[in-house]
Amino acid sequence: MSPLSVNRDRLFASLEALGAIGAYVDDRTGLRGVNRLALGAGDAAGRRHVVEQMRAAGLTITVDRIGNVYGRREGTRPELAPVMLGSHIDSVETAGRFDGCLGVMGGLEVVRTLNDHGVRTLRPVVVAFFTDEEGSRFGTDMLGSAVATGRIPLEAAYALRDREGRAVRDELRAIGFLGEADERVAPPHAYLECHIEQGPVLRAAGVRVGVVEGVQAIGWHALTIVGKSAHAGTTPMGLRADPGVAAARINLRLREMLASGRYGDMRATMGVISARPGLVNVVPNEVRCTVDLRNPDDDAMRRAEADAIAFYAAVAAEERVQISWERTARTDTVPFAPAVRERVVAAARARGMSWQAIVSGAGHDAQEMARITTAGMIFVPGEHDGISHNPRELSTRDQCGDGVDVLLDVALSFADERGADEEGGR
Amino acid sequence: MSPLSVNRDRLFASLEALGAIGAYVDDRTGLRGVNRLALGAGDAAGRRHVVEQMRAAGLTITVDRIGNVYGRREGTRPELAPVMLGSHIDSVETAGRFDGCLGVMGGLEVVRTLNDHGVRTLRPVVVAFFTDEEGSRFGTDMLGSAVATGRIPLEAAYALRDREGRAVRDELRAIGFLGEADERVAPPHAYLECHIEQGPVLRAAGVRVGVVEGVQAIGWHALTIVGKSAHAGTTPMGLRADPGVAAARINLRLREMLASGRYGDMRATMGVISARPGLVNVVPNEVRCTVDLRNPDDDAMRRAEADAIAFYAAVAAEERVQISWERTARTDTVPFAPAVRERVVAAARARGMSWQAIVSGAGHDAQEMARITTAGMIFVPGEHDGISHNPRELSTRDQCGDGVDVLLDVALSFADERGADEEGGR
Repeated sequence: MSPLSVNRDRLFASLEALGAIGAYVDDRTGLRGVNRLALGAGDAAGRRHVVEQMRAAGLTITVDRIGNVYGRREGTRPELAPVMLGSHIDSVETAGRFDGCLGVMGGLEVVRTLNDHGVRTLRPVVVAFFTDEEGSRFGTDMLGSAVATGRIPLEAAYALRDREGRAVRDELRAIGFLGEADERVAPPHAYLECHIEQGPVLRAAGVRVGVVEGVQAIGWHALTIVGKSAHAGTTPMGLRADPGVAAARINLRLREMLASGRYGDMRATMGVISARPGLVNVVPNEVRCTVDLRNPDDDAMRRAEADAIAFYAAVAAEERVQISWERTARTDTVPFAPAVRERVVAAARARGMSWQAIVSGAGHDAQEMARITTAGMIFVPGEHDGISHNPRELSTRDQCGDGVDVLLDVALSFADERGADEEGGR
Repeated sequence: MSPLSVNRDRLFASLEALGAIGAYVDDRTGLRGVNRLALGAGDAAGRRHVVEQMRAAGLTITVDRIGNVYGRREGTRPELAPVMLGSHIDSVETAGRFDGCLGVMGGLEVVRTLNDHGVRTLRPVVVAFFTDEEGSRFGTDMLGSAVATGRIPLEAAYALRDREGRAVRDELRAIGFLGEADERVAPPHAYLECHIEQGPVLRAAGVRVGVVEGVQAIGWHALTIVGKSAHAGTTPMGLRADPGVAAARINLRLREMLASGRYGDMRATMGVISARPGLVNVVPNEVRCTVDLRNPDDDAMRRAEADAIAFYAAVAAEERVQISWERTARTDTVPFAPAVRERVVAAARARGMSWQAIVSGAGHDAQEMARITTAGMIFVPGEHDGISHNPRELSTRDQCGDGVDVLLDVALSFADERGADEEGGR
């Protein structure tokens, strides 16, 4: 293992500096949050800042046609596939400073550390940030990495529009990040992403490094429950068809399913609940709600989804309402490469850091890259029960530093690795 | 009892004609509904139409300072307190043709029938329609009758504004119904209101006339439930504080309370349910919802309200959320005068109409008038389970005619009644 370690003060200061861009103060809490919705003014300023930092670290910048940015540090064998360290710097509207940014500024800190020590690697090292990982503005998450790896065609991505009708392509051009490089990225030798856990597990266990096994399966249902609007003061219970009651039963059923233990380490959430007409004295005639199911086990996910769907039908019959639902997202589990997981464990061990295996509850660019190369992730713990997408999001200087030290070790391990591409190129 | 009967065809045609004013076609059903929000263009047109009809029937029109309209047919003893027949012609945004209008056009039909037969009554007969009974636009229901009877001061009513910030006084002036008559109405000898039931009871029982005992107690709670926004994919159940789950438990608890039979003939409704931020993959941090409780028994109402409030606190503790609530309305039961109820029963009996006692689930102008005089109501059945505030609202020609025949009988009984005011005026 490498004798090098990253500069934790510099890393944390770089996260603070990026976090000051697109900052806002939350009315209710007085806390400072971050709003860098993809391709907006905050994101544009953040992009210019990071590109400037990359250039200062000696990286050569490439911007592709979907606005993904790659900063390349040359290897002794430039023709070999690089090791790529990446994530994203766009954010949800009410974000903290760490989600995504740790992977990008962590990658840059790895480069700076190599520079500090004059280390030359066999393979190039590329630090990448991908366009619109959050999907908060244009409705499709992991957009840039999905285009780079071929899951989403460029023209389909260009045509996506925000709520005001502005298209991705126009917004890329407007902020000066409509690049000319081919959007399909050449598969790197390995892709590594250091990220905050966005959950409480590592912190609660007192563990310093999360070895990410993969991303759990995700299923989203958008439900429309139609009942019968009626006068709240006069209509007897027996004549009601109340879609709010039906939604309530589904919400509580999700929790019963969790408590049953029949679906493994399931998560279930009703995030959208909205009744119409929404008047105090009128039984609603329509409720729109959503169900978000997650599971690290594909079989358990399938069982949970089937049982939830069967329950919708049962509730519809019992409550005399119509329930229509649409599957708005569905992905199976994405396993990360054993080669990455093994090296993350080895690095943590060598540094005397506690570690544990963990499954990612959220989606990440790494799951897109996993389609085209050896990919994996390192998680670091978060304070405040690992709260994320919130100004209270916080991983400390040392929590961040632990993760990026491991990122450095694993990056060097891959960057000096010979491989199939060494003979004859790719 | 009177040998007279009203002209049912004329009555129903007058309801159809008024229902054509402010009409719209519902997008989803293709049904024609009525939108005559108080003091808007539809209400103004409806007011002009009814005033014209009143004048054509020989009534003398008075408009007071809150826009209530009184059409007077003189009695042989003009100095005696009149019998007043009234209701409202304003509507909710998605109304039918009968709510309120039956009481006004029914009152006018009584006058027309007296005219047809050259009947002179001892006391004057006044047909009234009150401003903004629905409260849908300015937020306060029974506004005109509450001002007329002194519950709400005129200046407070004038200052009410709609969502666009337009004040009642300005809107009255704009539509030409800011009258000059004293808004405090001289107590009539009796006040009678014929109205659709707005519920299924009479129709289901096959009963033609509802003898309204009074208006049930009403309590409204506006709840704000604050939890903790969290990532749907990562946050374990044990660390969640989900206000949507809390709202669901309250909604289902309301139904359990009903089923328990411990609260008499209670009604309970959660009409507003709205989660923020309202994203599929985020545990909500806030849910706003409402509880509407009704009960024909004041003691049972108090028990139900106390138990609901205790449950809010229990749920808050169990779900680790904060629940704050505000009582946005609370009225005890309003009993109607025995003298009116007895005469309604007598009239129905004399005409061979089946009848039953019933408690009003909704609020009505009659409950305001009950504060200052002998007041009561006659209900008629409605088709389609008595649906109301909906284009499908329908009471047939004969259902309406039955009610207005009884209204005629009871009106005549009071209009020819001598009383304390006969000696020395009032």
